Amino acid sequence: MVKEFEQLMKHIDKVTAFQTALTLFEWDSETLAPEESMELTSKTIGILSNEYFTGLINDEVKKLIEKLSGSKKQEELDFNQRAIIKNLKKTYEEMEHIPPEEYQAYKELTAKAAGIWAKAREKKRFDDFAPCLEEIIRYQKKFAGYRLKSGRSRERGIRLPYDVLLDDYEEGFNMDILDEFFEKIKGTVIPLLKEVAKKRDTIDKTYNHLYYDIEKQKKFCRFISGYTGFNFNRGVIAESAHPFTTNLHNRDVRITTHYFDRNLESAIFSSIHESGHAIYEMHIDDTITQTPVGTGTSMGMHESQSRFFENVIGRSEAFWTPLFPKLKETFPQQLKDITLDHFIRGINKAAPNLIRTEADELTYPLHIIIRYEIEKMIFAEEIGIEELPKIWNKKYKDYLGVEPKDDGEGILQDIHWAGGSFGYFPSYAIGSAIAAQIYYHMASIMPINDYLKEGNLTPVREYLNQHIHKYGATKNTKELLTELMQEELNADYYIRYLTEKYGRLYDLDV
Amino acid sequence: MVKEFEQLMKHIDKVTAFQTALTLFEWDSETLAPEESMELTSKTIGILSNEYFTGLINDEVKKLIEKLSGSKKQEELDFNQRAIIKNLKKTYEEMEHIPPEEYQAYKELTAKAAGIWAKAREKKRFDDFAPCLEEIIRYQKKFAGYRLKSGRSRERGIRLPYDVLLDDYEEGFNMDILDEFFEKIKGTVIPLLKEVAKKRDTIDKTYNHLYYDIEKQKKFCRFISGYTGFNFNRGVIAESAHPFTTNLHNRDVRITTHYFDRNLESAIFSSIHESGHAIYEMHIDDTITQTPVGTGTSMGMHESQSRFFENVIGRSEAFWTPLFPKLKETFPQQLKDITLDHFIRGINKAAPNLIRTEADELTYPLHIIIRYEIEKMIFAEEIGIEELPKIWNKKYKDYLGVEPKDDGEGILQDIHWAGGSFGYFPSYAIGSAIAAQIYYHMASIMPINDYLKEGNLTPVREYLNQHIHKYGATKNTKELLTELMQEELNADYYIRYLTEKYGRLYDLDV
Repeated sequence: MVKEFEQLMKHIDKVTAFQTALTLFEWDSETLAPEESMELTSKTIGILSNEYFTGLINDEVKKLIEKLSGSKKQEELDFNQRAIIKNLKKTYEEMEHIPPEEYQAYKELTAKAAGIWAKAREKKRFDDFAPCLEEIIRYQKKFAGYRLKSGRSRERGIRLPYDVLLDDYEEGFNMDILDEFFEKIKGTVIPLLKEVAKKRDTIDKTYNHLYYDIEKQKKFCRFISGYTGFNFNRGVIAESAHPFTTNLHNRDVRITTHYFDRNLESAIFSSIHESGHAIYEMHIDDTITQTPVGTGTSMGMHESQSRFFENVIGRSEAFWTPLFPKLKETFPQQLKDITLDHFIRGINKAAPNLIRTEADELTYPLHIIIRYEIEKMIFAEEIGIEELPKIWNKKYKDYLGVEPKDDGEGILQDIHWAGGSFGYFPSYAIGSAIAAQIYYHMASIMPINDYLKEGNLTPVREYLNQHIHKYGATKNTKELLTELMQEELNADYYIRYLTEKYGRLYDLDV
Repeated sequence: MVKEFEQLMKHIDKVTAFQTALTLFEWDSETLAPEESMELTSKTIGILSNEYFTGLINDEVKKLIEKLSGSKKQEELDFNQRAIIKNLKKTYEEMEHIPPEEYQAYKELTAKAAGIWAKAREKKRFDDFAPCLEEIIRYQKKFAGYRLKSGRSRERGIRLPYDVLLDDYEEGFNMDILDEFFEKIKGTVIPLLKEVAKKRDTIDKTYNHLYYDIEKQKKFCRFISGYTGFNFNRGVIAESAHPFTTNLHNRDVRITTHYFDRNLESAIFSSIHESGHAIYEMHIDDTITQTPVGTGTSMGMHESQSRFFENVIGRSEAFWTPLFPKLKETFPQQLKDITLDHFIRGINKAAPNLIRTEADELTYPLHIIIRYEIEKMIFAEEIGIEELPKIWNKKYKDYLGVEPKDDGEGILQDIHWAGGSFGYFPSYAIGSAIAAQIYYHMASIMPINDYLKEGNLTPVREYLNQHIHKYGATKNTKELLTELMQEELNADYYIRYLTEKYGRLYDLDV
């Protein structure tokens, strides 16, 4: 092995270990840790985070990355090693231009912000959160400014602060690309939604809110996670307030679900969704797990996997054909009069609503577009903080036809901004679009609906494993898509998917 | 604050953070981690352990401890700070005389040994484990040899290898003290057991092995942990193969239980036992938690707390007087004909048996004495590894009147030696003896049985909190006992306790 690479990996193994410990603490705090523990555990987390930072950002590591980036050394490295260097260079440049004391202050700010946001949301008062949000935005702009001056930004032709952030979450994506992407979607979804609205009440969903015993739900959700492809030898399922997936490495992937006794769908589809994320992480190749490229390549690609399983196949009639009898067997009373067709219409019912996380597939991208447009305005300095709720509410009215009664069901609903995650929301829509694009490609090479009807998900999973999962972050989204289907992200598939699906469900003339 | 102390604490805070992370990984692996995860997680654990070791054992820390041990600096430190320095000096001297590469090799050996031991136990073949055990003993003797040459051993008058190990687990204890302690116990327990044996069959315990629904057991055990004093805001209960307690700090203390559907007692008493450990850790003073002295002072003292709750009060009629109706209510069918008196005799039934962890209170110390005597022989170089099973079996015959059919229920039953824990077993008996001694002292200053009958455990817990728990490891066992009752450990109380209790239960003339 190249000597410098070996030296570098000693540092990286150490920071990976700190990162893994931090992941475990995070998992533990979301799923199990006692109520009063955080006050003291946060000290441990603070120290580990600091060790992570100083272990990664230091002169020795910097020199090694520089050496290994040289064209002669690059030739000596293999594919995975080059990907690791590229990835580290990116991480490094993201961080090294930020003065450590500012980064520290920013971290402390966002640590506190979560609490301030939660209280403001509870009281439904944006004003309580605004000063804190303003401060976070100030830091974000400042950091983006530093990074615009970096060699990396110049090399990549990134010239605007918001583009810096978009590129962080999805390499190679910027406002030019996303503007076109979202405009296309808006142009289709808003009129489609109006058509759907006329026929909305033809779908009955009362069965979903009968009483469903939680122990029985748990059993069924465990079954459906396994059915989807969750490997229990390499993973565990627990409960938390909000479902999520996390992983220590490819042999330890964890998901959570939240059960409601008056909502049958919620836990089932969050189980499939998180299983989709988990399947991705469980199939990262052994040669790269526990390295910086040993995880999903981007948020968008990750969401494409979870949404492919949850929505594209998980809400289809083919998928439920072999499963619906089992669900009826689990809840014979509640589902007595519900046919498969009724159930499929129920789980796909579209209705404009104020809350992103409760949105159906059709209205979901509109929630994202609203956030994207507002973030663009923030970073273009077009608006003051105090104007945000008004703009938010107006966009909901214009695009979805609904208006928040208060900030709690409006601008305060997402935690993302409190954590400084600007440029993150588009990933959700990118994920949905990729999922649709993958579906049509898959359908062109295999009889996917026949497989689903037969309860045979193996060909589907193997396609994803072989073309996407195993590569982890050694290839970015653009590279993966292009290699797989000789085409980059193309919103047309997503539009076709939504149009066909909702046209069929609501018997529309589209 | 003294400048050097502040500098030292920066190092200590860091190693404490690594230690806390290691504790969480251990908890996670025992309670939740997926089956295949350990192969990769062990890399993370290895790196964190190494960071812990090098963060603690280095010249800078050594110099600071030396400076702070000087008499002038000592005067400037407060009580807790002096205790921290004393404790670190001990830890330091335990480790610094061992060459790091030997320590590393030894760690790798014991990491593998657990698996070898488990397989040998399964196959019931001591020979499969013997070479590994011999190697562990070789290291232990070598390390003890290094440490005998240290200033600390010389200062403390420790001259024999086994005394080094005994002093590690219980400061100030050595073979002279323990020989006398165990001889006294043997002299009482062996004859008492013979008397009991004659009347053993007067006690019926078949009710204990009826079918007991596990969900109902869980509910009752959670209740009884809370009743005993487990604070659920600062702790959680999970399940694992073998019950244990662990803690990240005084606001995060965790216990496990294991439920059997054909054994009512098992989970109940392990819940009370682990709650006893947990109550100790939950009441360590806020000023010392997350420092090296922020945990129970010794294994023996810890066991005294768990055994006090589990056995001394937890198996008494007074304790169960307010609780037994609730237990009967939980299992009305199974306990229909069982009276409180019957139940108390049942849970205290004494019968010689081959397995330490299943032993009753009366025979328990004999299991410990056998291990103590064998460990003494090992470190006095009196015996070869191959002779161990024969000696083991003979001692069981002589002291308990039972003989193992194979090594699985004989010398291979405990994991301790595979982990290199020699000198550890006596702590269990010391714990039982301290529990009895504390009981008589407590009874001399408060109407403890009246309190128990009234379901009022507060005075009992507050006595323990105020005199033992809050001090953590700032005082050692000898100091705590002497300050509390003007007397060191005295086996007479333990003997009196066993004699009175079993005399009463079996209507003996003692």
